[in-house]
Amino acid sequence: MSRLTPLSGFPELLPAQRLVEQRVIESLSTSFELHGFANVETRAVEPLDQLLRKGETSKEVYVLRRLQEAADGKDAGLGLHFDLTVPFARYVLEHAGKLEFPFRRYQIQKVWRGERPQEGRYREFTQADIDIVGQGELSFHHDVEIARVMVEALSQLDFLPGFRLQVNNRKLIQGFYAGIGAPEVDAVMRVIDKLDKLGPDRTRAQLVDEAGLSDAQAEKCLTLAQIRTPDTSFVDLVHAIGVQDEMLEEGLAELAAVIDGCSGLGTDRVRIEADLTIARGLDYYTGTVFETRLDGHESLGSICSGGRYDSLASDGRTTYPGVGISLGLSRLLVPLVTRGDVRASRSVPSAVLIALSDDESRDRSNRVADQLRDRGIACELAPSPQKFGRQIRYAERRGIPYVWFPGEPGSDQVKDIRSGDQADADAATWMPAAEDLRPIVVSGDSTSEGAPLR
Amino acid sequence: MSRLTPLSGFPELLPAQRLVEQRVIESLSTSFELHGFANVETRAVEPLDQLLRKGETSKEVYVLRRLQEAADGKDAGLGLHFDLTVPFARYVLEHAGKLEFPFRRYQIQKVWRGERPQEGRYREFTQADIDIVGQGELSFHHDVEIARVMVEALSQLDFLPGFRLQVNNRKLIQGFYAGIGAPEVDAVMRVIDKLDKLGPDRTRAQLVDEAGLSDAQAEKCLTLAQIRTPDTSFVDLVHAIGVQDEMLEEGLAELAAVIDGCSGLGTDRVRIEADLTIARGLDYYTGTVFETRLDGHESLGSICSGGRYDSLASDGRTTYPGVGISLGLSRLLVPLVTRGDVRASRSVPSAVLIALSDDESRDRSNRVADQLRDRGIACELAPSPQKFGRQIRYAERRGIPYVWFPGEPGSDQVKDIRSGDQADADAATWMPAAEDLRPIVVSGDSTSEGAPLR
Repeated sequence: MSRLTPLSGFPELLPAQRLVEQRVIESLSTSFELHGFANVETRAVEPLDQLLRKGETSKEVYVLRRLQEAADGKDAGLGLHFDLTVPFARYVLEHAGKLEFPFRRYQIQKVWRGERPQEGRYREFTQADIDIVGQGELSFHHDVEIARVMVEALSQLDFLPGFRLQVNNRKLIQGFYAGIGAPEVDAVMRVIDKLDKLGPDRTRAQLVDEAGLSDAQAEKCLTLAQIRTPDTSFVDLVHAIGVQDEMLEEGLAELAAVIDGCSGLGTDRVRIEADLTIARGLDYYTGTVFETRLDGHESLGSICSGGRYDSLASDGRTTYPGVGISLGLSRLLVPLVTRGDVRASRSVPSAVLIALSDDESRDRSNRVADQLRDRGIACELAPSPQKFGRQIRYAERRGIPYVWFPGEPGSDQVKDIRSGDQADADAATWMPAAEDLRPIVVSGDSTSEGAPLR
Repeated sequence: MSRLTPLSGFPELLPAQRLVEQRVIESLSTSFELHGFANVETRAVEPLDQLLRKGETSKEVYVLRRLQEAADGKDAGLGLHFDLTVPFARYVLEHAGKLEFPFRRYQIQKVWRGERPQEGRYREFTQADIDIVGQGELSFHHDVEIARVMVEALSQLDFLPGFRLQVNNRKLIQGFYAGIGAPEVDAVMRVIDKLDKLGPDRTRAQLVDEAGLSDAQAEKCLTLAQIRTPDTSFVDLVHAIGVQDEMLEEGLAELAAVIDGCSGLGTDRVRIEADLTIARGLDYYTGTVFETRLDGHESLGSICSGGRYDSLASDGRTTYPGVGISLGLSRLLVPLVTRGDVRASRSVPSAVLIALSDDESRDRSNRVADQLRDRGIACELAPSPQKFGRQIRYAERRGIPYVWFPGEPGSDQVKDIRSGDQADADAATWMPAAEDLRPIVVSGDSTSEGAPLR
């Protein structure tokens, strides 16, 4: 078998790393379901014209063709989806007659982009999206709800570093740029979006050169973009710049409502801020916009982004507005697990290895295993009747905490191989310590066993 | 937005159908983990030379190319995997240094084949595989284990019709064909594999014409292929044909061990049989082989197949033998859920809809929701303060069983909208009936609520 070097951009996890990912997906799913979000999966492929309808060639779509069609070079006209928003919009239109609106869904799936791989950027990666979509209309309070649900879900992942949810509003910034008399609102937004990279001086210059602003207008835009508050005090700071615009006021009120609505969720680890730099580039948001930065991992960029679309989808007659947020699960997790910052407490589900005295006693060991499994205790048999010392090392290498020694009826024993404690045990009643029942997620740098994720 | 007709061969589920699939995946995962199988996911793509190395063009591989490469027609040299065995073999070789052997893994992922879609055959579908792989060697008893684990996992899916696990052994049939002096053992196997389609007469003719057997030899092969027993009595039936061969005896002993090992698992619904027709076509099995038929759905073919490979993978120095079995989850579920034979008890996770008196009381309703969620009860708020009758219909359309009416402190009420019963309730202590806590899988033809899957 040849070509066994890893494919760049297609990260694969070892079993103990995958366990972390499984626990995170379980935890996120539980959080989303507690808020009434139903799970949906869409097919991996979409017609190419759908994938490219916003001119998204920058996403580097992977195009499919069937091998049998190689000769004539025909494509199936299909590409792999590069996000979960385009397929969800199509799903809503295709199945609208069978869905109930407002429709809440979460979707956790792989997506593919043919981009050049780099840190935090993969060619295959998993996203976790939540969206609420209405038929014809969708009340603003769902913007607050989406923010709350994602903050709650992220807060449950207690092995994560702290994070900042940065909220802004397109109406606010577009209204502001219109209010100062900018000749081209989109051009201003494009320049401001690069503020982090360019720094204030070059941004100011580009606002004048590329967006056609006067020095005074550019200065006001920079002042706006530098406003960042953990509460609604941004409203007074914006008013102090002295720009009058109706859409600006609407945006200010909406952003204040999101920040107010999330105020109970903030902690030392979790901060929710109004951050007036955030614009979400060229994406087609029309109101609230979100980004999320992980403390100490700012180079990853935003790990969780989204916002309000007045038209997530439309069939020409009916428009479906939506608000959603998308968590870059791989971008978040792959660096943490491959560096070993977080890991599973063992590499297998088994809590117990059932020892084997000789091949003839396999049935006896199997009966013990069946009794434990009936009560939800994962276990496996030693593969062969080696010396007990070797069977214990078999368990040790996998992180299995207990070894069970079947004996004569009534004389079974179980050993905690970490402490060496060994005691009589009955397979009909014995339970491992609660934290040993399933593998748990622990910090790589701690020797403690950590706490199980919800 | 154009092209909203479904893509043939790419089935998509509505939320209530997807709930059934989620529960099935949860149940299978629990069963596999109780037996110590660790979950793994492999990337969706493999180098084309890996995908085609067994001449598997019949699987109709989808080839990828990046859109930016369109001009020069270059391919990325990658294709989508058409099963989970090829990628798992590659995963084992690539990560062998970091895995513990024997390595037990389960893998539940989508696979893609460009075949012509038909009933039970899709272009995108989900498989659930379990395999045990050794480094250099793998004891035979794992063949018994694999059969037991999959039978136990399928038995937990109590909404399924009954099923038959059909077991055979390549050594048995190859040894038998060699023992009668067949000039070309593989040719005999290819013909016998079509017995179901051809019937005995045409099979007999092809055994003579295509496999070069005498009439007497052909007759013996037909006699063998028609042996099917629910116990180890097949051994005597085979011996009665009077063929002597060492490999035949080895195969008989192995098959008897699998049938014996599974004898405790049989029920009226679940039958485990020695079926000497089963050969698994051209796949590279070397011992035990499995197929599974669903009662009343025989036209679906085998929903769950596998067997023993003496060489699942090899890097030239070390050989990795394996035994595994693959469940065609989509083939099993998509017809059942799209016909409505099984369904979820509701289309959303929410057990409770919190009613809304007016927009000012949203905070009050949110506090009730938070209290319920803290205790694991999924709920959602009514989206707007309509008349209570309309809010109740909102719940009804989604199958949400309870509506909560927040009142003055201490005077909340909850209504079971199925019975109409309404009573005082405290959000800090109230619990729904246990079977209402999460959506459950029910038979489409029954009005009863069924039992939750494990």
